[in-house]
Amino acid sequence: MLKIGIVGGTGYTGVELLRLLGSHPEADVRAITSRGEAGTAVADMFPSLRGRYDLAFTDPAKTDLAGCDVVFFATPHGVAMAQAPTLVAAGVKIIDLAADFRIRDPALFEKWYKLPHACPDLLAESVYGLPEFHRDEIRKARVVGNPGCYPTSIQLGFMPLLEAGVVDSLHLIADCKSGASGAGRKAEVGLLLAEAADNFKAYGVSGHRHHPETVQELAARSATPVKLVFTPHLLPMIRGIHSTLYARLTRTDVDLQALFEKRYAGEPFVDVMPAGSMPDTRSVRASNVARIAVHRPGNADMVTVLVVEDNLVKGAAGQAIQNMNLMFGLPETTGLTALPVLP
Amino acid sequence: MLKIGIVGGTGYTGVELLRLLGSHPEADVRAITSRGEAGTAVADMFPSLRGRYDLAFTDPAKTDLAGCDVVFFATPHGVAMAQAPTLVAAGVKIIDLAADFRIRDPALFEKWYKLPHACPDLLAESVYGLPEFHRDEIRKARVVGNPGCYPTSIQLGFMPLLEAGVVDSLHLIADCKSGASGAGRKAEVGLLLAEAADNFKAYGVSGHRHHPETVQELAARSATPVKLVFTPHLLPMIRGIHSTLYARLTRTDVDLQALFEKRYAGEPFVDVMPAGSMPDTRSVRASNVARIAVHRPGNADMVTVLVVEDNLVKGAAGQAIQNMNLMFGLPETTGLTALPVLP
Amino acid sequence: MLKIGIVGGTGYTGVELLRLLGSHPEADVRAITSRGEAGTAVADMFPSLRGRYDLAFTDPAKTDLAGCDVVFFATPHGVAMAQAPTLVAAGVKIIDLAADFRIRDPALFEKWYKLPHACPDLLAESVYGLPEFHRDEIRKARVVGNPGCYPTSIQLGFMPLLEAGVVDSLHLIADCKSGASGAGRKAEVGLLLAEAADNFKAYGVSGHRHHPETVQELAARSATPVKLVFTPHLLPMIRGIHSTLYARLTRTDVDLQALFEKRYAGEPFVDVMPAGSMPDTRSVRASNVARIAVHRPGNADMVTVLVVEDNLVKGAAGQAIQNMNLMFGLPETTGLTALPVLP
Amino acid sequence: MLKIGIVGGTGYTGVELLRLLGSHPEADVRAITSRGEAGTAVADMFPSLRGRYDLAFTDPAKTDLAGCDVVFFATPHGVAMAQAPTLVAAGVKIIDLAADFRIRDPALFEKWYKLPHACPDLLAESVYGLPEFHRDEIRKARVVGNPGCYPTSIQLGFMPLLEAGVVDSLHLIADCKSGASGAGRKAEVGLLLAEAADNFKAYGVSGHRHHPETVQELAARSATPVKLVFTPHLLPMIRGIHSTLYARLTRTDVDLQALFEKRYAGEPFVDVMPAGSMPDTRSVRASNVARIAVHRPGNADMVTVLVVEDNLVKGAAGQAIQNMNLMFGLPETTGLTALPVLP
Repeated sequence: MLKIGIVGGTGYTGVELLRLLGSHPEADVRAITSRGEAGTAVADMFPSLRGRYDLAFTDPAKTDLAGCDVVFFATPHGVAMAQAPTLVAAGVKIIDLAADFRIRDPALFEKWYKLPHACPDLLAESVYGLPEFHRDEIRKARVVGNPGCYPTSIQLGFMPLLEAGVVDSLHLIADCKSGASGAGRKAEVGLLLAEAADNFKAYGVSGHRHHPETVQELAARSATPVKLVFTPHLLPMIRGIHSTLYARLTRTDVDLQALFEKRYAGEPFVDVMPAGSMPDTRSVRASNVARIAVHRPGNADMVTVLVVEDNLVKGAAGQAIQNMNLMFGLPETTGLTALPVLP
Repeated sequence: MLKIGIVGGTGYTGVELLRLLGSHPEADVRAITSRGEAGTAVADMFPSLRGRYDLAFTDPAKTDLAGCDVVFFATPHGVAMAQAPTLVAAGVKIIDLAADFRIRDPALFEKWYKLPHACPDLLAESVYGLPEFHRDEIRKARVVGNPGCYPTSIQLGFMPLLEAGVVDSLHLIADCKSGASGAGRKAEVGLLLAEAADNFKAYGVSGHRHHPETVQELAARSATPVKLVFTPHLLPMIRGIHSTLYARLTRTDVDLQALFEKRYAGEPFVDVMPAGSMPDTRSVRASNVARIAVHRPGNADMVTVLVVEDNLVKGAAGQAIQNMNLMFGLPETTGLTALPVLP
Repeated sequence: MLKIGIVGGTGYTGVELLRLLGSHPEADVRAITSRGEAGTAVADMFPSLRGRYDLAFTDPAKTDLAGCDVVFFATPHGVAMAQAPTLVAAGVKIIDLAADFRIRDPALFEKWYKLPHACPDLLAESVYGLPEFHRDEIRKARVVGNPGCYPTSIQLGFMPLLEAGVVDSLHLIADCKSGASGAGRKAEVGLLLAEAADNFKAYGVSGHRHHPETVQELAARSATPVKLVFTPHLLPMIRGIHSTLYARLTRTDVDLQALFEKRYAGEPFVDVMPAGSMPDTRSVRASNVARIAVHRPGNADMVTVLVVEDNLVKGAAGQAIQNMNLMFGLPETTGLTALPVLP
Repeated sequence: MLKIGIVGGTGYTGVELLRLLGSHPEADVRAITSRGEAGTAVADMFPSLRGRYDLAFTDPAKTDLAGCDVVFFATPHGVAMAQAPTLVAAGVKIIDLAADFRIRDPALFEKWYKLPHACPDLLAESVYGLPEFHRDEIRKARVVGNPGCYPTSIQLGFMPLLEAGVVDSLHLIADCKSGASGAGRKAEVGLLLAEAADNFKAYGVSGHRHHPETVQELAARSATPVKLVFTPHLLPMIRGIHSTLYARLTRTDVDLQALFEKRYAGEPFVDVMPAGSMPDTRSVRASNVARIAVHRPGNADMVTVLVVEDNLVKGAAGQAIQNMNLMFGLPETTGLTALPVLP
């Protein structure tokens, strides 16, 4: 059994970790911290966990996490990098669900997150936690930066095209739509049901923090430079991301369906759907699977890729557990096999 | 043209007043105040009003409302009663959409709202603004306490039965369901889309502030004492209240359908539906109409009354304008004739 | 491993059985029939099942179910009773998720379902599949009639009060609200998103087929006769039932909280929440748990019981699997331990 | 007063015409036909219209529409072109909300709609009813083909760029999202609340009937040939279209904000929002306004245009009434001035 700590457990990624780890046969959650809710029983805040978790939230300042095998940070940016050096020194492995270990260049991190990086050395050895592209490094990593929800879907969709060098990499477009849980469990007028239900809008059109990590990773596997227009939108629903990706084909003689199927053959959590498919977000609701369909409308020189994932699972907590499984030599799918909830 | 002031215009009742008054041929909104948003153009906060309102929110402390014919208070409890004496002395009529002028007994007001009443004299002369039961008094009123959203629906449904003396008035049950806009435009975790969508729950089971005004009004028209069990629930939708009312019949020889039809004959905003109907909330969406259906399941000794209203219109801003029309001798339906928005 | 057949697998209870059985360690689904979809791969109709089910729907007329250990009927009323005698004779156990084996009195069944009962003998030996009240009989049963979704919640909430004889059993009220999946996966205008979203209404006020089985079961455990007013409502959401139950107390000296806690002590799927709680439907989403809270508003002579369940799980497929576990001597919670999906 | 007939009034565009015409001071709806619902009172099918419409649906075969000034066709494709010649000969003006008079080329119409055109002569004289681009022709038209909901939003967003010749017209991308009412009031499993709520997906990726009319109109105002990738998506909400449009700029020295503001100056129903805006669909809910914002992310060589409209108003019934106003010399905004419903 892995001894597990969770820092910052009152948000949606925190409770999703608890939900998924509750069915993970090798997981023993020992501690979960919250500054604001220290002393509150986890099951009082989240009645869905009643009868299964006896834990209470504890004050992070008073919680000894050094005895854990792995600590998940489900915190705002900046927390994980402050605590990681001490924990790593104590032999604890770190999986950060925020952005502290996603961006390789400390200056770029600082530009977007308005904080100097607290541990550039650990950043340098840390691994970007997208198993489909960094599996071997993750297995050996002490610190993993879990990808953002949007970036996961965009990378899964664009990467086969970039690796094959068949698209104009300077004019990539990612039109992404996310359920409201992606914005987190924070009291904000714009996220109220009475504001966000029966409504749809774009946001962050002029710049979103998920942009730099996406471009960094795409560029790493593209022979040509990458530019990306990324438009996130807020969906009137709880869970799910649908990314509609567009690129101009520089070669039109490639069998795109075969390209994707071959790239993801054997991947337990990436499902390339049959030609002509249009995946819906509910087909992955509450599960760690991403589904992808690739189209070439009118057989012209544009490719459209459709990607769906559950933003809280493959886009956050599920992928984090997938990483944990890899880091500790467990079968990669352990604890992540429950079927999607449909309807 | 009536010169109109609105105090506290950034909430849902405020913007609904602006929407409805924007189509009212006798309304000239001169001022709208907000402590937090002074200086912000109304149309910047609510783009739905772009091109129709040039107003900006003003600081209430610096806004002279004494030149208005009528001032609406779309504020939290306590604000209207503080300002009403001065305004009334200046000849301004007051319509309070909060609770300051709903409860006749100052002690009962203080018990539920934790504030001593600031102007018991004005309270004594003020009128409870449910036109179907206080029309003549409203016409002459200087101060109107606009009813709560739940109480409007409960009174419309129970009153014919109590006036006729045909139910056990000591065991009335109001099982009420409201859209999330009824909770107001305030940043609260429990009202987030990601919390409240695809979800349903009761709240305030042990006591809700709409209880005392409801019982006060029901009792005033019942020959026997009134006790009410009132259970509000939060619906995963924006607008609409559905009240399902239950009472035991003390007489089963009464034609309930005829009783309701007769009681509301000629009422412009109360629609008694044909026997057997089950109204849906969308049939009154964005309109000032309430629809009612009365049932006697199995022809036994229980009566079930179904009432729907739009909580922001007949339950708040629309009823306030209906009251304004009465207070100023305008046709009662002026500005309130747009049809419900369906679908 | 249990060899399992499912008759009528294209509806919501069918796909929910597949979802849950997909994680059940003793389940081997051998056949799933559909008249309309014979030949279609299950995973083509429900992409959420891709990669986990190789089965295709088969023509019921050509499907040999006699080799199964157990057959679930997720069909309209009338199908199970037609096929049950042959299957039972072949040694197959039957769990019917429709109404064929819920109502003990064949005449009453015929009155509500407009069909004479096809096998009154099997009906006589069949067991009503609410484990909390018929556990021992279910263990020995060959045929189980799985309860309706509404009746499950109403019985769980009222039964402790009736068993203790502390309420007026002639004036029970069940104000029930269900997500739209309860109406089934059938093309009906009234169930379209554009009709049913952002909307709420009652239906079946004059009579609903879940009424007779509920009264039958409540009466069986009440020393006094039972009459019930039952009002179902359609919620603008997918899953979840919230039943708000009202009764007049004939004794007010009883500790209701203790009564409920004692009655359900040890029950794996009934959670009596702490005094003052108000459960939300999402706290049981996609799980087999029902949560109950009991209130006595104003300490007067009325009791209000709040019950939530997932209509497709504890209200249908989950309870059916709970029954299967009992019928085959498996631990009752096998395959039903995944935590609710929240948010 | 205009004598008005509506053919096919039981769908969403039909009831929306009734809602809007109910507040139009010059409208007198004389007849509304429905094959399936002949004899049913309009207000029985749509209780939102109770008390305002005495009409019943009539059999189209028995309804004399020749005495009308104008007839709206809110029917499936093919109906308007069959009846238009007779009506036009009788002096009736025609506004078709389906596709019969949208596509100039009869062969192209037949290719997409699988019907030969029934009256190519009338088609030749008919006018495409997008007032912002065909206002003068509409004023003189006898037959108007009201644009599709998606095409309206795409044209409003792309046209200023194409007219100015500043984008690569061969690689236009329209990523469009529509509420479920856009699919019509038809019983289809995929449109059930339990299927489409809390869900999101693309559809028609390989080809959608709104594609040809859009390209036809865009091309008519572009000096260079037009190719368009158009991806419609289904939103889990009732009303509203959000089109996110992408194009590569061939000139980057143009002030795009000024271009749009100038193009739409004076347009009563097109609102170019301030630079940096991101319009939400609710800001036009139930109103005839479209709002547009133009962005150039990162000041690079791509332009992103955001367009919102209510698919049933500016995308259908509202625009049809706007056309009627023009055809009969009424002020263009008559009956279309109600403010959007927010929240």
